[in-house]
Amino acid sequence: MKINVVENVLKASGAVAEANRRRMDEARLVAINLMSAPGSGKTALLENTIPALGPDNPCAVLVGDLQTTRDAERLGHLAVQTTQINTGKGCHLSPAQVAQGLNTLALDRITFLFVENVGNMVCPAAFDLGEHLRVVLLSVPEGDDKVAKYPILFQVADAILLTKVDLIGVLEFEVRRVRDDLSRINTRAPLIELSNKTGRGMKEWLDWLHRQRRPPNRARGGTPATF
Amino acid sequence: MKINVVENVLKASGAVAEANRRRMDEARLVAINLMSAPGSGKTALLENTIPALGPDNPCAVLVGDLQTTRDAERLGHLAVQTTQINTGKGCHLSPAQVAQGLNTLALDRITFLFVENVGNMVCPAAFDLGEHLRVVLLSVPEGDDKVAKYPILFQVADAILLTKVDLIGVLEFEVRRVRDDLSRINTRAPLIELSNKTGRGMKEWLDWLHRQRRPPNRARGGTPATF
Repeated sequence: MKINVVENVLKASGAVAEANRRRMDEARLVAINLMSAPGSGKTALLENTIPALGPDNPCAVLVGDLQTTRDAERLGHLAVQTTQINTGKGCHLSPAQVAQGLNTLALDRITFLFVENVGNMVCPAAFDLGEHLRVVLLSVPEGDDKVAKYPILFQVADAILLTKVDLIGVLEFEVRRVRDDLSRINTRAPLIELSNKTGRGMKEWLDWLHRQRRPPNRARGGTPATF
Repeated sequence: MKINVVENVLKASGAVAEANRRRMDEARLVAINLMSAPGSGKTALLENTIPALGPDNPCAVLVGDLQTTRDAERLGHLAVQTTQINTGKGCHLSPAQVAQGLNTLALDRITFLFVENVGNMVCPAAFDLGEHLRVVLLSVPEGDDKVAKYPILFQVADAILLTKVDLIGVLEFEVRRVRDDLSRINTRAPLIELSNKTGRGMKEWLDWLHRQRRPPNRARGGTPATF
């Protein structure tokens, strides 16, 4: 009986995720689920990414946290649509929470929707929210053993950002070890070495994002991208 | 129906936790559940703590990880009883897993049993494993906003260790902000500022541990502590 309940919950969850994806497909936006441990720099990444994408690529953010609206406040000055979702005791965003979040946004004015998941290396990996792409962050202070220890998260990633690389040298960290572990579980996703402090890797990250943009929907009267 | 199932699971889980606690009480050991985000220094703390406690305070470790035996291997040279528990997809140790772990240890030869939980700031806080004390680690690179964002974890703590304090100055981090957030949710647990690199705070941490030791059980023929 226990198993049935879990299966039913997952089935319902998958249906909501599919509905989210359809809505976002229709709006021609690209939804990116950002996942990582707490404090690896998800919000800082958005603080740098959104201005760099510029007005031709309007962004919106759904921010998941157990409590507080601190992340949404940090993004407030960027003048993008931002909605904070508090999960209470929940260790991940659910598709239903994302569906509610989508209701608060003007979807047809968005090129990139960033879904900043709850800081957690386990739970978020198990839930499809309806996103198009999954980006996983790993920060240098967390240690170079984390790919092997949390393989499921890194397996589902479409891109992996190694953040705070300015701390290599200050802290013991071998990028080689991360690449070695990734070579066994995910050879598809690029590993981008980033520093929000020095700007290293930002061009590579922005280029990756630009390649994910959707072609305009000509059938629905869209105009060609000016990018 | 869903709620009933969850309640039954939690009730069964609580019973196993109580059985664990009785076993450990009988063995006169002190069980400490170590909880934190990934990479905040739980294993490094044990690498320094266990030798410092010395042969008068024999330790054992149950190490929880989704995959790999890397943490247990890191502790191997300390010649203490160590058992790795792989949780697969589980974001926390369960009381049943701890019960199995206890079966692998000679309990009556242990003063401190450290249970190194899965790196996660959400799930472990919800599960009583039968431990006597809960110690929560927060490392400086994770940021000074984490107490407010993960209050449940910090609420259940009997001691809070702020680790990697040698990075204050290299990274922006205000200890004042952590203390301020803690003053609203947990005034009982001491906040100990630690650095595994410089040794700062180790004396305070060891003193705290020593105060948690159990008096010998005279009725059962125990001898007075020599410590």
